[in-house]
Amino acid sequence: MKKQEKKQVKELESLGLKLVQDIEKGRNPTMEFTLRSLSNIVFDERTKTLSLGKKQQQRSFFNVGHAKKFMQTLEVAKVSKNLIDVQKHASLRDVFYMAKRTIPNSNTNIVDEQAESDNAIEDLELITDCSREQMHINANKMGSVAGNVVVEDAGDSINWSKLGSGGWSIPSNVEDIEFKSVKAKYVIYMEKQAVWERLHEDKFWEKQNCLIVTSQGQTTRGIRRLLQRLNDEHDLPIYVLADFDPWGFYIYSVLKFGSINLAHMSETMTLQNARFLGITADDVTNYDLKKHFIKLKDVDYTRLKQMADYDWFAKHKAWQRQFKMMKDFGAKLEIQALSSKGITFISEKYLPDKIKKGEFLE
Amino acid sequence: MKKQEKKQVKELESLGLKLVQDIEKGRNPTMEFTLRSLSNIVFDERTKTLSLGKKQQQRSFFNVGHAKKFMQTLEVAKVSKNLIDVQKHASLRDVFYMAKRTIPNSNTNIVDEQAESDNAIEDLELITDCSREQMHINANKMGSVAGNVVVEDAGDSINWSKLGSGGWSIPSNVEDIEFKSVKAKYVIYMEKQAVWERLHEDKFWEKQNCLIVTSQGQTTRGIRRLLQRLNDEHDLPIYVLADFDPWGFYIYSVLKFGSINLAHMSETMTLQNARFLGITADDVTNYDLKKHFIKLKDVDYTRLKQMADYDWFAKHKAWQRQFKMMKDFGAKLEIQALSSKGITFISEKYLPDKIKKGEFLE
Repeated sequence: MKKQEKKQVKELESLGLKLVQDIEKGRNPTMEFTLRSLSNIVFDERTKTLSLGKKQQQRSFFNVGHAKKFMQTLEVAKVSKNLIDVQKHASLRDVFYMAKRTIPNSNTNIVDEQAESDNAIEDLELITDCSREQMHINANKMGSVAGNVVVEDAGDSINWSKLGSGGWSIPSNVEDIEFKSVKAKYVIYMEKQAVWERLHEDKFWEKQNCLIVTSQGQTTRGIRRLLQRLNDEHDLPIYVLADFDPWGFYIYSVLKFGSINLAHMSETMTLQNARFLGITADDVTNYDLKKHFIKLKDVDYTRLKQMADYDWFAKHKAWQRQFKMMKDFGAKLEIQALSSKGITFISEKYLPDKIKKGEFLE
Repeated sequence: MKKQEKKQVKELESLGLKLVQDIEKGRNPTMEFTLRSLSNIVFDERTKTLSLGKKQQQRSFFNVGHAKKFMQTLEVAKVSKNLIDVQKHASLRDVFYMAKRTIPNSNTNIVDEQAESDNAIEDLELITDCSREQMHINANKMGSVAGNVVVEDAGDSINWSKLGSGGWSIPSNVEDIEFKSVKAKYVIYMEKQAVWERLHEDKFWEKQNCLIVTSQGQTTRGIRRLLQRLNDEHDLPIYVLADFDPWGFYIYSVLKFGSINLAHMSETMTLQNARFLGITADDVTNYDLKKHFIKLKDVDYTRLKQMADYDWFAKHKAWQRQFKMMKDFGAKLEIQALSSKGITFISEKYLPDKIKKGEFLE
């Protein structure tokens, strides 16, 4: 068992022990942990992330309003303990099915919806101060990576620079990966697989001495942790490459400042020094891309407005300028519009120029 | 330039040459190719795939109804020729932006929507008898693979059995992959990444001497071609593992019998001897999984009815029995419900038993 797993097991055991003591002393078995609700989510000005405040909550067995959640939390703790004991991992969906058993002599299932076990897992993250991944519970697997890095994972030594056109498929859980050698100056994270394939075919990572990472759409927790570990453990700056659209900005916002859902994980899940590389409103004019504008829809305007009001963007002139320009354009632009300038324009001109000039949004 | 690329270039050049000859002889420049429309899609009883019939269509320059499409087809042919010449690949979206140029002295773009360039590309597949991938145009990248296989791709030698918990990330275009060594008895293709991670962690492919392939949701063309090449070139049977639900069945149906969209590619895109491994209605009763039923919705019933009426399922008693049982249950079941039987139940009991007993649906 690894050191981190021993900590996790110890945390789970102390939870159990505490409850047994409550029972033995005739007290109402109770867990106490930080309140995970909108009313306790704050924007921490120091760390610049969405985090939980100081409010606490209690969950007791002898409380009609708590009893079911109490049981769900314990059931999930049992599942996690079991996973670590047998050295296996399970998905959120698997854990749901494992916990969905009928309480003997009743018609009641411990959980009926995945939302219930997911919630219990997030509570356990707070109670044990270990991430879901450390509890051996994984979410979706997504994305690829390439560059001059050698890792050791599940007994294999994997060289990210020798994996053909496909690259390494990023696992859902990257906690156990060991970095053996990291030769790169920075990481570009992009939302679109097609852009990744463009940069990979052009050997961008080799020419520019960087790493390229992609998901497809949403950034999974596995990818966030991978980026965070590269940033933390190897001091690599993270540059985000996304569409010039409210959703592209939102991807950046979540990566950098966190999200409501992950406020309790802000320390391990946010990239406080990530920078936005493009596409920006200035790129649109500098590279004469207006022709490829896509009209904003109502839903885009709403998202844009919400973002402009976020604490972390509200006082940020450079970002407010971007939001305003997008609104004035009444249009968004996809990163692939750069292809209209030539197949390799993005890898030979756009990115090297922007990085050289340091044209980032923070 | 590879042999296949030379063929593609030759096909594109003969298209150009033919049109030049039309012009020199004072004829209306015209392309002729198989009609790609619903009225010309047939279920070929011999190959058991959805294919195009014999109807032909003409596309002429001097024809108000054809002129724009004529131009779009030629523009895409030019883009493809250029991609092959410079030995680069582009995504469908890239090709759209490359083709979206304004005709000189006009306000008209050659294409305004990606659907137009996509259509032109599919027409070109018919005109040149080469796949889009062979024209260096890729779609989405998705999915992972693991097993005892060594391939050569983009100058690297990649061992699918030595890639840690992530596996190899399948590229969008697998035409140029060379299989150096393939040691496996069969391939399991599954829709869900989480199931793949389960089997991978349990070293299922090692213990059972097979390959495991996953996408996430839709099967991309890259994955279909990979499966087809493993089946064609290495005689590996393909087993499909999906949910017991109309959409799981549909994934199998498209893989095996093709789809309307890909009727013109049925030869290279269908897996005529794929078999459905599970989840089946019989599994539900054999493994006592009714507890995890999810009620069918209207949209599920509609899909189920459509499938029961498909030519290839209509006369198929075993499948009709499945459809009827699902209807009688009024419920579907996810593959991950097997986790309720134990973490490794799927890899240690369910799959080995089913494969040993040969419990497939054809």
